Amino acid sequence: MPEQMQARQWMIDTIRTVYERYGFVPLGTPAIEYRDVLFGSAGAEAQSQTFGVRNPDCGPHTPDEDLLALRFDLTVPLARVVAQYKDLPRPFRRYQVAPVWRADKPDRGRFREFTQFDIDSVGVESEIADTEIITGMCDTLSALKVGPYQVRFSSRKVLNLLMPFAGIPLDRAKDVFRVLDKLDKIGHKKLRLELTEGYVDKSGDPIPGLGLASEQVDKIEQFLAIRADQRENVLTQLRELFAVTPDATEEIDALARISGHLTTLGYGDDQAAIDLSVARGLAYYTGPVFEAVLLDAPKFGAVFAGGRYDELVMRFLGERLPAVGASIGVDRLLAALIDLDRIPLHKATAKVLVSTIDEGMMNEYVAMAYELRRAGIPTEVYLGAGKRIGKQIKYADRYGVPITIIYGSNEREAGKVVLKDMAAGQAKAKQIDGRDEWREERPGQVEVSRQDLVTHVQELLARIDAESRPQDG
Amino acid sequence: MPEQMQARQWMIDTIRTVYERYGFVPLGTPAIEYRDVLFGSAGAEAQSQTFGVRNPDCGPHTPDEDLLALRFDLTVPLARVVAQYKDLPRPFRRYQVAPVWRADKPDRGRFREFTQFDIDSVGVESEIADTEIITGMCDTLSALKVGPYQVRFSSRKVLNLLMPFAGIPLDRAKDVFRVLDKLDKIGHKKLRLELTEGYVDKSGDPIPGLGLASEQVDKIEQFLAIRADQRENVLTQLRELFAVTPDATEEIDALARISGHLTTLGYGDDQAAIDLSVARGLAYYTGPVFEAVLLDAPKFGAVFAGGRYDELVMRFLGERLPAVGASIGVDRLLAALIDLDRIPLHKATAKVLVSTIDEGMMNEYVAMAYELRRAGIPTEVYLGAGKRIGKQIKYADRYGVPITIIYGSNEREAGKVVLKDMAAGQAKAKQIDGRDEWREERPGQVEVSRQDLVTHVQELLARIDAESRPQDG
Repeated sequence: MPEQMQARQWMIDTIRTVYERYGFVPLGTPAIEYRDVLFGSAGAEAQSQTFGVRNPDCGPHTPDEDLLALRFDLTVPLARVVAQYKDLPRPFRRYQVAPVWRADKPDRGRFREFTQFDIDSVGVESEIADTEIITGMCDTLSALKVGPYQVRFSSRKVLNLLMPFAGIPLDRAKDVFRVLDKLDKIGHKKLRLELTEGYVDKSGDPIPGLGLASEQVDKIEQFLAIRADQRENVLTQLRELFAVTPDATEEIDALARISGHLTTLGYGDDQAAIDLSVARGLAYYTGPVFEAVLLDAPKFGAVFAGGRYDELVMRFLGERLPAVGASIGVDRLLAALIDLDRIPLHKATAKVLVSTIDEGMMNEYVAMAYELRRAGIPTEVYLGAGKRIGKQIKYADRYGVPITIIYGSNEREAGKVVLKDMAAGQAKAKQIDGRDEWREERPGQVEVSRQDLVTHVQELLARIDAESRPQDG
Repeated sequence: MPEQMQARQWMIDTIRTVYERYGFVPLGTPAIEYRDVLFGSAGAEAQSQTFGVRNPDCGPHTPDEDLLALRFDLTVPLARVVAQYKDLPRPFRRYQVAPVWRADKPDRGRFREFTQFDIDSVGVESEIADTEIITGMCDTLSALKVGPYQVRFSSRKVLNLLMPFAGIPLDRAKDVFRVLDKLDKIGHKKLRLELTEGYVDKSGDPIPGLGLASEQVDKIEQFLAIRADQRENVLTQLRELFAVTPDATEEIDALARISGHLTTLGYGDDQAAIDLSVARGLAYYTGPVFEAVLLDAPKFGAVFAGGRYDELVMRFLGERLPAVGASIGVDRLLAALIDLDRIPLHKATAKVLVSTIDEGMMNEYVAMAYELRRAGIPTEVYLGAGKRIGKQIKYADRYGVPITIIYGSNEREAGKVVLKDMAAGQAKAKQIDGRDEWREERPGQVEVSRQDLVTHVQELLARIDAESRPQDG
């Protein structure tokens, strides 16, 4: 619907501005990919959620019909493109905003078609690239004025240390991470059950366990117990826990370097925290992993997530090409912001409605509209069924057009135009310098000279805009 | 690829700005629609070009698998939405920019997935709505700086007059229009053959004829012979030709009113011409039809097309809801503009590359980049493989980043930074007041104070921008 679409467009433009400031370049890829390309690295779940596509050229029910599918993310197509076009810059730092499709159960902020906004740096191993993804998340969420948020990050390589520490074979790491990633959702008790013997959930479905021993889970719990407001504090505790674990220093140092960059650049512990329970479910992550949550809307889960995936491109290219990136679920974040009432919704784009009360003066109404449009003012000529002024004003009111122009033969004779300020007359208590104060109300209607119409409309719009803007501080 | 994507994004933003000035509101609809919805009004050709979609929930080869398909245009989904959501404003004046899919033979500027930008006014019969679509086309093409263009329009209702005039039954009108629409492509000789006995084309395929009599085609030719630079002139000739045809005055008057509005609003005969050979192939048009061509790139055909379709929404709603709209093929227009060299292509979004020649100073490079980014200057930190300054400068050059920052331990000691202006040293002959003049070349490198880095970069960027802008007039 138009009000969501306008808000969504504002979000996309805002995110794009942030990423272009980082020098990311836009990429487009087709919605339809070969099934083979998509599924090489996808789990069974992704496969079962993918919409197949049939090329009509192939006729019905030919063996070819299963060749094509709609993309379910933007990362796999990126890996394909990078492998295919050797000419691209290295590193290739791109953003892409595009719909993806998953035959998932639709839910609050979950749709079968949804728009993702991804950034990725491909071909670069540096922790500066990791840092840029984290700060890009922060800058984006700040620019979108989402309210309090926190980016939480960890590293698969640090999580890997947990395996020898808890005496779990490394090849079980991905299963363990998949379960750890659910901690926020299921809590510690069910986490323990799922790591050991499994349990039966509320709806009676059996959730199989990983069969770990209780002492192994104790070690995991010890790891997860490391929580602190300061990144430095988490790092210190990590060093203590893994004091005798081989290779631990190196991996913890890498995480510490990212934290150090963040500190230097002014991203505090409240904005970007090390959170060891962040594992991210995706199988292909190999290094740092991150997610962002809205502190006022935890039920929407991670609105932003990503990580380093140094092996994914290898599948297409045959050579290792390190990469790191993150993805924002635009539609889910929009749903959260609407839920929190933190994004203005406008039904109309028009700032002015030229009412058309006198059929015989239609040419003049149209001429007025084009004068305003040429001055860059979004303007609509009322072309609806009702000819009565009351109905036309109600239309402007209903769709949130701030100014209605009223012009009849009397006004024409006087060389005047009436501007009706639709918001005037509504509540006017405003917070000024922290106190409630009554502002002088704008008059509901003003008569202005027809000749200077554009100037008068510009002035009134500027006044309306200034008064409707939330006071800072 | 990034350079096309940036140009495309600029086009979409520009078109959106024009339509929002008209007060059109954005709408989004899903890419996947029920096949029934799409095909109710589509011809066999559209059906054979539509990609089917299989919902994985349904399992393979169930009867349901043919229920879904990818949209092939944005008009049919609009009609569905308008019928479904009674709450929408009437008239509903919306724009939509989104991909559509057709399993067409790919060609120059023709792709299987391509982006359409549509505007439509639904629920309004007024010729002012028709006029807005035509002027919207003009304003859009002017804003996109496509060079000389012409919007050509006619009316199905005027074309209908041709049927009694030539003694052709009205129910054959759509077949005749479909053939007339090919005139530009096939010329008058083949047009006559296709209207009569048919012919065999170059590749040996038989093109069936409509079986009209030669005298009937003479009358059609008489109609098509009405061509004039002035809209008024065409209207006068039309009135003469159809002097005794019933209802002719009414239909010609309607076309004349649109022409009159255009004149009043300042859209001249060169921008918007009445062209009676414009019929548009689509079956559902009922009134005015329009298309736009780039006069320098006729081979790309109509880059913009539309018409009035007063019956389409009835199929979904059961009640008649008049509508008019037009669609711009964004990808085709982009291909044409690239072909004409009329749109700048930028590989990078970054305006500044911070080179990283000294690994030990990485923290300082990163800090510089964030300073510039926070001032709104798109900046990239070089993270590529080559550490030599030559390689890093080549990178900036290759991807069109206008400024490279060079900063080593010597500069640090002096509190200085070197700005390398990548375009300096290139040819500087500029047209000034119609004459070739040599401009003073900007120095290739300047040393500026580290402290005032942001200000210096802003100044240099402003200078580069001013000099690279094409001179007006």
